[in-house]
Formats: sequence, structure tokens, C-alpha cells
Amino acid sequence: MRKIGIIGMGHVGATVAYTLFTHGIADELILIDKNEKKASAEYNDLHDTLARNNYYVDVKMQDWDGLKDAEIIVTSFGDIDASVKTGDRFGEFNLNAANAKEVGEKIKKTGFKGIIINISNPCDAVSQILQETTGLKKNRVFGTGTFLDTARMQRIVGEKLGQDPKNVEGFVLGEHGSSQFTAWSTVRVNNKIASQLFSEEDQDKISAQSNKNSFKVAFGKGYTSYAIATCAVRLVQAVFSDARLFAPVSTYDPEFKTYIGYPAIIGRDGIEELIQLKLTDEEHTKLTESANKIKEHLASLKK
Amino acid sequence: MRKIGIIGMGHVGATVAYTLFTHGIADELILIDKNEKKASAEYNDLHDTLARNNYYVDVKMQDWDGLKDAEIIVTSFGDIDASVKTGDRFGEFNLNAANAKEVGEKIKKTGFKGIIINISNPCDAVSQILQETTGLKKNRVFGTGTFLDTARMQRIVGEKLGQDPKNVEGFVLGEHGSSQFTAWSTVRVNNKIASQLFSEEDQDKISAQSNKNSFKVAFGKGYTSYAIATCAVRLVQAVFSDARLFAPVSTYDPEFKTYIGYPAIIGRDGIEELIQLKLTDEEHTKLTESANKIKEHLASLKK
Amino acid sequence: MRKIGIIGMGHVGATVAYTLFTHGIADELILIDKNEKKASAEYNDLHDTLARNNYYVDVKMQDWDGLKDAEIIVTSFGDIDASVKTGDRFGEFNLNAANAKEVGEKIKKTGFKGIIINISNPCDAVSQILQETTGLKKNRVFGTGTFLDTARMQRIVGEKLGQDPKNVEGFVLGEHGSSQFTAWSTVRVNNKIASQLFSEEDQDKISAQSNKNSFKVAFGKGYTSYAIATCAVRLVQAVFSDARLFAPVSTYDPEFKTYIGYPAIIGRDGIEELIQLKLTDEEHTKLTESANKIKEHLASLKK
Amino acid sequence: MRKIGIIGMGHVGATVAYTLFTHGIADELILIDKNEKKASAEYNDLHDTLARNNYYVDVKMQDWDGLKDAEIIVTSFGDIDASVKTGDRFGEFNLNAANAKEVGEKIKKTGFKGIIINISNPCDAVSQILQETTGLKKNRVFGTGTFLDTARMQRIVGEKLGQDPKNVEGFVLGEHGSSQFTAWSTVRVNNKIASQLFSEEDQDKISAQSNKNSFKVAFGKGYTSYAIATCAVRLVQAVFSDARLFAPVSTYDPEFKTYIGYPAIIGRDGIEELIQLKLTDEEHTKLTESANKIKEHLASLKK
Repeated sequence: MRKIGIIGMGHVGATVAYTLFTHGIADELILIDKNEKKASAEYNDLHDTLARNNYYVDVKMQDWDGLKDAEIIVTSFGDIDASVKTGDRFGEFNLNAANAKEVGEKIKKTGFKGIIINISNPCDAVSQILQETTGLKKNRVFGTGTFLDTARMQRIVGEKLGQDPKNVEGFVLGEHGSSQFTAWSTVRVNNKIASQLFSEEDQDKISAQSNKNSFKVAFGKGYTSYAIATCAVRLVQAVFSDARLFAPVSTYDPEFKTYIGYPAIIGRDGIEELIQLKLTDEEHTKLTESANKIKEHLASLKK
Repeated sequence: MRKIGIIGMGHVGATVAYTLFTHGIADELILIDKNEKKASAEYNDLHDTLARNNYYVDVKMQDWDGLKDAEIIVTSFGDIDASVKTGDRFGEFNLNAANAKEVGEKIKKTGFKGIIINISNPCDAVSQILQETTGLKKNRVFGTGTFLDTARMQRIVGEKLGQDPKNVEGFVLGEHGSSQFTAWSTVRVNNKIASQLFSEEDQDKISAQSNKNSFKVAFGKGYTSYAIATCAVRLVQAVFSDARLFAPVSTYDPEFKTYIGYPAIIGRDGIEELIQLKLTDEEHTKLTESANKIKEHLASLKK
Repeated sequence: MRKIGIIGMGHVGATVAYTLFTHGIADELILIDKNEKKASAEYNDLHDTLARNNYYVDVKMQDWDGLKDAEIIVTSFGDIDASVKTGDRFGEFNLNAANAKEVGEKIKKTGFKGIIINISNPCDAVSQILQETTGLKKNRVFGTGTFLDTARMQRIVGEKLGQDPKNVEGFVLGEHGSSQFTAWSTVRVNNKIASQLFSEEDQDKISAQSNKNSFKVAFGKGYTSYAIATCAVRLVQAVFSDARLFAPVSTYDPEFKTYIGYPAIIGRDGIEELIQLKLTDEEHTKLTESANKIKEHLASLKK
Repeated sequence: MRKIGIIGMGHVGATVAYTLFTHGIADELILIDKNEKKASAEYNDLHDTLARNNYYVDVKMQDWDGLKDAEIIVTSFGDIDASVKTGDRFGEFNLNAANAKEVGEKIKKTGFKGIIINISNPCDAVSQILQETTGLKKNRVFGTGTFLDTARMQRIVGEKLGQDPKNVEGFVLGEHGSSQFTAWSTVRVNNKIASQLFSEEDQDKISAQSNKNSFKVAFGKGYTSYAIATCAVRLVQAVFSDARLFAPVSTYDPEFKTYIGYPAIIGRDGIEELIQLKLTDEEHTKLTESANKIKEHLASLKK
């Protein structure tokens, strides 16, 4: 049976819980939050849903011990306001670096041996801290990273061409944050390559927009929830069913010696394989710069 | 194809939208809110989800004219804070009576001929104002009413007996608000009647708890969303597929000459039939009192 | 993760596999059949579906050893022609008693410790043989039994009253076969009891029809598949999520010392509890006779 | 609401019906077959499922008049034995050319104005006859064509590389039959092009295998059903939600003046657009030859 813990019952964690619940993807769901009132409210709202849901799900609350034999933990702690105020997800860094250590140690104590899928921002840095603190193998801890930014790029490209975003392939790479970029050499729409579709100027605009759009949503409703939760749930499903899904996620990249958004194959063991792209020199430079930004922040912690 | 409008993009309306979207229940979804920023944020969050959703849904925004040929409109406007502050959903009455008239007139102007499913509180009174203002037939406007409270009662009874809430049948009747009550003569669990399961004292406690629980959720997260949205979506599905679903909803009851929570059959024409229950004298008295409360509030508007 | 084996790739077993596959209910699915060509054809047809399915499922073939750590095995072996020819599911008895022993011993050898849900006919007798042969606890082996016949009764009653079959509750009890009967004292529609809805004559007709209808389907297409597969899948889901679903299934009844169709609570341990009904004397007599029929056939095996 | 007719209740048509039913994709489903017994058996099996299905669907039978306001008709008539015997889907040509004319005229008489999605074989030729006979616009009649063969190619390529078939893109083009071919210039796996993955010899083998595999399934179980039904259902969903899905289907190609498998955008009007590929000369020759085969068969009808 499928047992999942979610740590952090903000809008994102709660929407992940509801999505797993309303589709019957989880058999057992453990909701955890420092704020007892919030955890309890979400727990009760889901329990009130049971009589109308097409699936039964065994929802529990604040049960750290229960994580011991969970197969997946989704981490979604933090305070988006800190990101929104500064306009950069590293605005949450100090807060969430501390959270990540605390949560990581608590997870370690439970004896958890499964897969961690991290959403908390700044996603790449927090994923790395969670991996280091829990002592789980690198492939067993990864972040949603640019899986979400890529969805936003697919949407924008799709809209510009009047196409379903699913007809768009290619990747946003790097930090899940302001140094990310669309790797246009990987983008294709309906079997056509990007250079046939957009001028370089347009490419730059779209690349910037994928990142900005998230803040537009966050300014409008105070947070973003549906797209990020849906991304996390797709990754959860790929782990359970060993789907070998090809997706850009925040993963440890040995080249850069840091977690960063890069395409990988997702299966039962988490990151099954990194897929090496043939990037242009310019793209490789951008990726290196993005990695450096993440590493500098992480290094600053150790001072 | 299935075309649905949602008026009111608060937490409830947005969760209804996401639930329809993530299950592919809607083909076309129109999101409307007075607050342009909120409508736009939800619109964008859903669009950002498209590349990761199992279904394509054509999501639009602020398109009142588009409601003309929608089959269903879900109304979920209002300000839950007003209810939470006063501890009674009639705390939102003055605000939402005005909203209902404004929204009802705008709907009328579009030429909409479908079904309205109202969530806005106080649910019974607002459903009635929407019916009167739109001029749609009484069976074509109904509210979620005690469909939600009944789910909460099923959950509490289920928990007390260690059973799936779906094994519990029976109804909460009356106002979707403080004068509601569990009609214990209708409650059965696993083919056993309530009097075999609970003392009268326990029955009174459970009946009160179904109503209080909603405020517990609302105090904890500031609103309730998952249970109410799931209830609304089940009613949407029943209308589309002409399911003849047996459910307690807020419907015009000719005996009391007001909208009130009572079991009905839900199908393509909305309320297909009221199902007469054989209530005890005490239950009938409670229902009458509940109806009077609703009617008094509605009457106060016309002074 | 959810791992399920299906033994018997006839129309029913294949439809169970497809239903689990198309809804992403299974993570790993093992298909087994004596007929290598049939197993291989279904395996290949599902693999050809993967690129178009909303879910990834790891489908395997003929992997008896893999059953060791499966959580559920569905058994659906046999030859419906033998039942259809004789007009009674005991027409398959000699064949399937032998199959059940062979399959049961093979399951035992794998070290399987999960739950067996048996569909093979005659369902009650085969469930019992599987339990005895595997040595699994009685609660961990049960059959679909009258869960299907009850669905057929709900459908007929629903159609007669113009209602959704889900508005109908109550049970068909006894053998999943010709001695089954509708326990009218348990039947309710929209909160009304059966005696208010149907004359005794009509009750008898409907009771007979629930059983006959299956043969009408079987004569028309050579087998029945969709209703029985959907019933089996609901039971699979109840086990995975520990739903404590209230359902009439083929379960060991200590009163009659045989497997027979009777309401139970289905959860992670299979049969969690038998729910005692207050039957009329006439109903109890029918149930006793039905139990005797099953027991006599089982006894005949031991001569 | 979503109203769909299915003409031809063989294994494929019935599986399409069940898939639409079990996912709640259809609101109203009309099942039609010349063989009254078969239509009735499937109708009854689905009705028996209603009490256990998560969705209500209004299933009807033999209601030609009801097709008048259906939005989609799926055609799945024919006799697969004729194809299996000859090892070529044109083995069914004489039979199904006659069927297509008869069915097309009957559809025309109903006043149907929606979209026809044809599965009947030989798929390209039958799609064309249906278009001509019904007089519907060319974009409103298309066939599943190589959407299925492409899924088979994706599966084979995925298996060879240990990847999810969904990680494989590219197209099988031409006849849904023996003259089809994999257009390797369009094939990519995890952002790598086919020539980096397979030798030319391997490419030829895989291309041949995609076609042969269908016969392996058909020989094993007497027909194929799950992959083809799932393909058809994806196309149904794309039409309802106006998804602008990019998919190779059997569509009228003005270059060849015949229906043939080629990538198109599928939306509410059926074929919204043909997407021109840059094929190699060799691929273009193969496509031309495949088109000629289809045209010759169609021409032979008019002699």
C-alpha cells in the first residue's frame, strides 16, 4: 500500500494532500505541521470530505513515528511571504535552512528509508540540506526544481503558438529561482525546433516570463498552489510505479557538486539516472552561473 | 461538451475549479471574481498546471458573456470572515444578499438557461435570492445546503463506530447553519438503526458537533474548502450525467415556502423530485423552526 | 507500493487487469495463466497501451515467484462455458475444484502472505478450497460472491423506480448462484423500505431476475466482464486503503461453517468483521438452504 | 453534457464503451450493433456495473435517432477474423467498405453534425468512405490510424532502452496496416535523436515489429482491445476539451488525396491542422507508396 508523509501544511502542502486524496493516489497520508491548528484544520477538512470522495484514504496527523515505513515524504515547509517580499526565493533561505536541518534530523530519527521529494524554497539548497541532514543517499532526495518552471515555459510557448502545452518539450534548467533559464536548444513544438519558431529576442522574453509568472500568481492570491502541487504529485506517482519518468528536477549534479534543476529519470529509487544534454556553450555558462549562486548560498551557511 | 462557470474565486470557488480541472470533469471553465487580481491569479495557476495535468481544460476568465451557453454555474461569493466572526453564517447575510442580487441580475442578462448550484452563505437564503433574481425555475437553482453537514455527520458517526463514513446513511436537515439538526430517524449504519447505536444524549452531542466542526476547520485555516468543494463537484456531476442522485440539498420546499436543506433527487433538470421523509414530530418541529429562521431573515430584506 | 497478482487471464481476469491499469490503481501487476498465449497477449496489449495511459504500471507475466510480496491476489480461473451450458455455476465445480487446489498450492509455495480475492466459480466453494489449500487465515481469503448479485438487484430495483442504483441499499445473500435470494428486509430506496415499494409478488420476480440477468449477459456475449471486474476492483481498493467498506461478499460464516455471501467489513486484513443482520425467519431458512447446497458440493469432493 | 455513440459492439467497441464509462468521460452513451444480442449483452453488463462505478453514465442501446445531437460517434464495426486470417487489414476491406456505406448513410439520415472517430479497418480507407458517405467535412471525420502503431513503436523503443514509452516521441506514418513505417527522422528519446540510439538495421527491425506485434496480440486472444480503445478515448477527450492534441491519426492529406496516418492537431472541430514534417526522401517515398496502396484499394471499389 502507498504511504506518504507531508511535512508543512501551508497552501502547497495542503494542496498536495488534497490532490493525493481526491485521486485516491495515497492509501495512508500523514499530515505534519509545527502549527497544530493548521495541521488539525486540514486533517479535519479532509476527513469531512471522506463521505463524498470516490476513494477512502487513511489520513493521520502529526504522526512522526508513522513516517518510519512511509515510502515517500513530501516536504513543503517555509514561509512564502519571505520570498514574495524580496522577489527572490532565497528570501526564505535563512528561515528554511534552519527548518530543513530540524526537519531532516527528525526524519532521520524515525528510521525513514524512502524517498524525499522537496518543494520547500529555495528548492535546490533546501533539497541539499535535507539530503545531508537525513544521510539518505543522494538519489533518494530530490526537489521539484524546474519541473514547475518547465511547465510554465510550456504553457507560455503553447499559448504563443495556440497549442496544448503538452505539445511543447524542452527544459528550463538551473536554480528554481531567478537564475534559471530556458535551454532553447532543447525546446521543440510539434516536431519543430525553437529557432524556427521564435526570434532570439522572443526567446529571451519567454525565458524571463516563465520565472516572473510565478510571482504574478503569488502576488494575486498570496501563494501559488495548483501547478506546484500537481508537479509534486506526478513525481510521487513516478516513484510508486517506477515509471522512469523523464523530468527536469532538482537533483545532485556531480559536475557542479550541488543540487540544481537538470533532467533525470525518476523511478522507485528516486533519481535513477541523470540524462546528459548537449547544451550550447552559452547555456552551459548560464547553468554554471546558476550552480554557483546556489553553492555560494550554501557555503554562506557554513561560515 | 461540459461548460461551467464559477462566480467567486475565494478559497471555495478556486478549490471547486481545481477539482473540476484535476479530474477533467469540465471541458470549459469560466472563472469570475470582482477582484481582478484574484481571478487572474487562479486563472494563471491553473494554466501553469496544464502541462502536468492528465486532462486538458479550456479555462477562461471574467467572461460573463460566455455564461450564456454554460450548463452549470456554481456561485461561491461572499466573505467567510463575516461568518467566522459572528459564529453564524447569517453574519454574511447583508453582504451576500446584495451580492446575490447583483450576481443574479448579471446572470439573467447573459441569457443563461442552465442550472445554478449555490454555495454562498447563508446558503438557503442566498439560493432563494438567486432564484428570484434570475427568474429561473425553482428546480433549476439549488444550494449545497446540508449535503456538506450530512457528510460531517457521516464522518463523526463513522469515527465513533470505527466505520467508513460511507457506511453511514441518513440526513442533516434544515438550514445550512446553526438551526440544522440530524434527523436521527433517518440514520442507519451497516443496516442498524441509530437508536440501537447511540443513546439520546449521544445523538444530541453528535448533532451539535456536525455544525461546530465546520467552525473548527474555519478557525484553524481561516476557511473550509475541500469538503465543500467536493460536495459541489458531486452535484455538478449528477447534473451533467442525469444521475438522479439522492442527496440532501438546499431546495425550495413548498411546505415551508422557503429554500431549506431536504433530500431530493438531482439530475439534468436540477431538482427532479423532493423525497418526502417520515420524520418524528420532534424532527418536524425542528425543521419548521429552521425554516422560520430562514424566512424571517429573508423577510427582513423586504422591509 | 501496490502489488497485485491476477491468476486466470480469461475475459474477467483481463478486465480486472485493464481496470486496475487504466485507473493507475496498481503499481505492479503480475498476469498469470496456464495458457501462455493468452497471458502473453494480454501482457502485450497492456504494454502497447502504456504510451497512451494516464498512469505507468509495471506489468509482468507468469511470475509466480513475484507473488511472494504481492499484497493481493485476484483469482479468476475457470471455464464459463461449463457454467453457461448447465445454467448453474456448479457446472464449473469439478473443473475449478481441481484448479483451486493446484493454484492454492502454488500460491502457498511462493510464501504469499497477503489477501486473496476470489472470483472463480462456484465462488463460495472455490473461495473455501483456496483458503484451505493456501492455509491462509479465513479472513484473508474471500470471494466477490453476492457483491455482484447485489449490484444487479440494485440496478433492477433502480430501473423499476427510475432511480440511480446507488440510491438502493440492501443485500442479495447466499450462494453466488441459483440458491441466492434478495433479503427484502434489508432493502431500502431513498429512505423507504421495500414493503412500501413492491408487492410480495414483485419482490419474488426481482429476486429471481438478479440471478437470471447474469445468464442473459453471458448468453449474449459469451461471458460477463465489466460488472464483475468493477466489483473485484472495489474490493481491491478497500483492502489497500483499509476502507472498512460494508459489502456483501463470499466469506466464511461460522454459523454455517461454510463460505457464503453475507455482509462484512472489508479492510486491510480482508474480512475485518461480519455484520449480523436481523433477517426474517423465511430469509434465514433460505440462507440455511443456500449454505447447505454449498456444503453438500464441498462434501462431495471428499468422498 | 458529453454525448457519444459507438457503432459496433465487438471487443474494441465494447472496450471503448467501458473505458468511457469507468472514467465517467461520457454523460450519455449510445451502443449500437447489428447483432441485437451483443448490443444488449454489453448494455446489460454496463448497467449491472452502475451500482459499483464511481460515475453515473446514461447508457442507451440501438438508438440511431439519439445520434442526432451526439457530439462524437466512434465507429468500430467489422470482423477482425478476416484481417487475422489474411495477415493484412485489407482482408476486411470488402466487408467493411459495405459496412461503412451502410453505417455512413444511416448516420447521415440522423442529421448528425458532430465528429466521427473511426477505428474500423482498414482504417484509412474506411474513414474515407465514412466521410464521403456522410457528407461531413473532411476535418470532422478521422481515424485512429497510426496513433496506435506509434504507441507500439514507443513501447518497443522504450523497452529496448529501459525507458517509459512516454519518454519516446516520433511517429509511425502511413497506412494503419502493412505499408506503415517508423519515420526515424522524427524519433527522439530523452532528448536524443534516433540515429544516436539505434543502428539502421535495428531501426528497420523495430519498424517492422510495431506492425507485427498487433498480430501477436490478435493471435493470442483473438483480437486486440486495450491499446486501441485507449487511443480512441484519448482522441474523444481531445475533441471534447478542444485540447489541440498533437497526434498522428488517419486524416485526409491533400498532398496524396487520400486518408492516411499523419500528425495533426486534434480539437473541437476534429482535425484542426495538419503538421508538416520534414521527412527524409526515403521516408517521403515510403509515405507515397503507402498512400498509393490505400488509393488503389479505394479505386477498386469504384470499378
